[in-house]
Amino acid sequence: MSLIVQKFGGTSVGSIERIEQVADKVSRFRADGHGVVVVVSAMSGETNRLIGLAHEVQERPLPREMDVLVSTGEQVTTALLAMALDKRGVKAKSYNGSQVRILTDDAHTKARIREIDDARLHADLDAGYVIVVAGFQGVDEHGNITTLGRGGSDTTAVALAAALKADECQIYTDVDGVYTTDPRVVDGARRLEQITFEEMLEMASMGSKVLQIRAVEFAGKYNVPLRVLHSFQDGPGTLISLEEANEMETPTIAGIAFNRDEAKLTILGVPDMPGVASKILGPVGEANIEVDVIVQNVAEDNTTDFTFTVGRVDLPRAEEVLNRVAVELGAREVRADSKIAKVSVVGVGMRSHSGVASQMFSALADVGINIQMITTSEIKISVIIDEKFLELAVRSLHSSFELDKEPTDEAAA
Amino acid sequence: MSLIVQKFGGTSVGSIERIEQVADKVSRFRADGHGVVVVVSAMSGETNRLIGLAHEVQERPLPREMDVLVSTGEQVTTALLAMALDKRGVKAKSYNGSQVRILTDDAHTKARIREIDDARLHADLDAGYVIVVAGFQGVDEHGNITTLGRGGSDTTAVALAAALKADECQIYTDVDGVYTTDPRVVDGARRLEQITFEEMLEMASMGSKVLQIRAVEFAGKYNVPLRVLHSFQDGPGTLISLEEANEMETPTIAGIAFNRDEAKLTILGVPDMPGVASKILGPVGEANIEVDVIVQNVAEDNTTDFTFTVGRVDLPRAEEVLNRVAVELGAREVRADSKIAKVSVVGVGMRSHSGVASQMFSALADVGINIQMITTSEIKISVIIDEKFLELAVRSLHSSFELDKEPTDEAAA
Repeated sequence: MSLIVQKFGGTSVGSIERIEQVADKVSRFRADGHGVVVVVSAMSGETNRLIGLAHEVQERPLPREMDVLVSTGEQVTTALLAMALDKRGVKAKSYNGSQVRILTDDAHTKARIREIDDARLHADLDAGYVIVVAGFQGVDEHGNITTLGRGGSDTTAVALAAALKADECQIYTDVDGVYTTDPRVVDGARRLEQITFEEMLEMASMGSKVLQIRAVEFAGKYNVPLRVLHSFQDGPGTLISLEEANEMETPTIAGIAFNRDEAKLTILGVPDMPGVASKILGPVGEANIEVDVIVQNVAEDNTTDFTFTVGRVDLPRAEEVLNRVAVELGAREVRADSKIAKVSVVGVGMRSHSGVASQMFSALADVGINIQMITTSEIKISVIIDEKFLELAVRSLHSSFELDKEPTDEAAA
Repeated sequence: MSLIVQKFGGTSVGSIERIEQVADKVSRFRADGHGVVVVVSAMSGETNRLIGLAHEVQERPLPREMDVLVSTGEQVTTALLAMALDKRGVKAKSYNGSQVRILTDDAHTKARIREIDDARLHADLDAGYVIVVAGFQGVDEHGNITTLGRGGSDTTAVALAAALKADECQIYTDVDGVYTTDPRVVDGARRLEQITFEEMLEMASMGSKVLQIRAVEFAGKYNVPLRVLHSFQDGPGTLISLEEANEMETPTIAGIAFNRDEAKLTILGVPDMPGVASKILGPVGEANIEVDVIVQNVAEDNTTDFTFTVGRVDLPRAEEVLNRVAVELGAREVRADSKIAKVSVVGVGMRSHSGVASQMFSALADVGINIQMITTSEIKISVIIDEKFLELAVRSLHSSFELDKEPTDEAAA
């Protein structure tokens, strides 16, 4: 008898047939006695159809009206799912963002949730209704319709779970959980039973597109247990929570993340003096280019080298900016390289276990991979390597950290 | 510098191209300095698409969710039109029924408007915005989305015009005004400059499908001048208002209406005693069959004949009911005839002009048409005739009352 928030994305509700399948699943949870709030996206294709209409009218559609337009997509799904539940004898009621009152700021097309009114929802839950909420949308304080930006339905689900103090927020998707690494790269990649919010954030930002980063942050902040599950296959999925997995079974490393969308820029021979880093990165930021890894080597002969990575698509613009900066600073040279990849080992376990870094570096050395840059955070070590070694690196690390093996209880013996 | 409410139906906003044309028209009114509130329907086909989805899910879709579903259609149009206006440099803002706060009762799919909050609209009008309102929808007092039923956008427009005390409510449609009769039947049918609410009601109920009856009633009740205009052709249209046209120019008769969707039922030889009419019509009403014309002839030999008309599609059911009633009442016989037509002359002028009835009957007699039934109201005289004489009757009456001639000022000479 718990309260569960379930989120189904556009593909999971992409046709009447799929909406019926979702209704079957929701009905089963209801039959088991759970309170259920369902958050749905627009049927797949619908949001793009609406955006297409807007672009036929206006090159840069009015943001306020864009939100009015696309928010209809989710509303359609809520009504259809409520009907499908009713057909199964399950009392159901749809809510749009305004009806719940999901209060957001007024940043149209990328609004942030401020507050959720849970009074009506609790009343309907108490009366035995399954509540079907339109994801991705809210209202500002003047009653204007807002949207949270693409993928915002995950955030809606987590925010509702937090506001309603739900026992679990289930995100249904087209994968059956979070994996130790990309199964397309490593055959032995294994579904994780459990992962912490921090680990999930580090994994997600590296390209596991399972969950919206904002939703994970939100869930972590309000300690809402998140579970990633497959929409149409049964299985326990992966639980994302504050707690580390049972200590006895905790592997040091949760997974290997990677990313080949970055490019590396180096500015050589810049004067080694205070403020030089901001003189380099300031203009890059002003050009709206996001920087990921930053490394500055120790100075020699009063000059230093400064290296950072940017998204690969931003490389030409970043190089242009950097060439200007180089002239101003009297730097010696600018070098660009887009044939790089980033590989990271992620795990809260490494906080208490020394030796992760050396194990990582030696695993790479064993297969002859040269490390170009290194950065570390509390629960992640990332290296930049030549792009062509990416798969080899991921496989070597996956095997070195024994991620292909099921966690055992042997440590408890 | 007046305030105008303009309503564009589904065909008028049926494509992006047409929405652009509507935006052109609205922009011109705005450029002339008028305050403009635009009420729009869903793009043609969209409401049917949504209803189709609902029926794929559920044979009898939940009325509450049906309203949630179909109300998205108008919302889409409001956003697109607001964008199209913005593109033309015209400040515009969309409103759905909940945002205006068009408060209705909770009769889902056929709600009635109770109250309109004009505060936000007036503020935006004062700030120079064109306001684009989703027709056909509202909210009940609990914030549930309601719809007014098919064609309800006309009602929305009139109700807004009443609430905002607009100078005129313009209904744009695919005809350029209200005609003296159907131009497909009479070549000389002429667009009326002006007609009263009462006349329009009598014309509309007879099958001129220009305006929703409820909207005309509403406009009459709140004295909102209505104008019927063509969406994409220029012209003055027809003004529908409380006032009769300039007395000097008033023809006695505004137009000839007709209807061939009815069928006639007669029950012969029923006892002539109090309560017999309700014993006949009670069961018909209980079977949800609407009755139009009712005629009871004077009694003879303590029995009487009772005749009424019903919609032609209801004839088989009505005949069945009437056969049962005939047995109960000991009536002699039931006769049914579906090959009939109703022809009416309509005009507020006939209140003060005697002789309309005799002119009508003699015009029909002149061409050899037999009158089967007659009913009259204050501003209408209707006759039931054999269906095959319909066109002949309409043409004869149109010509007899000189409706094909422009009203002249000769009476003023």
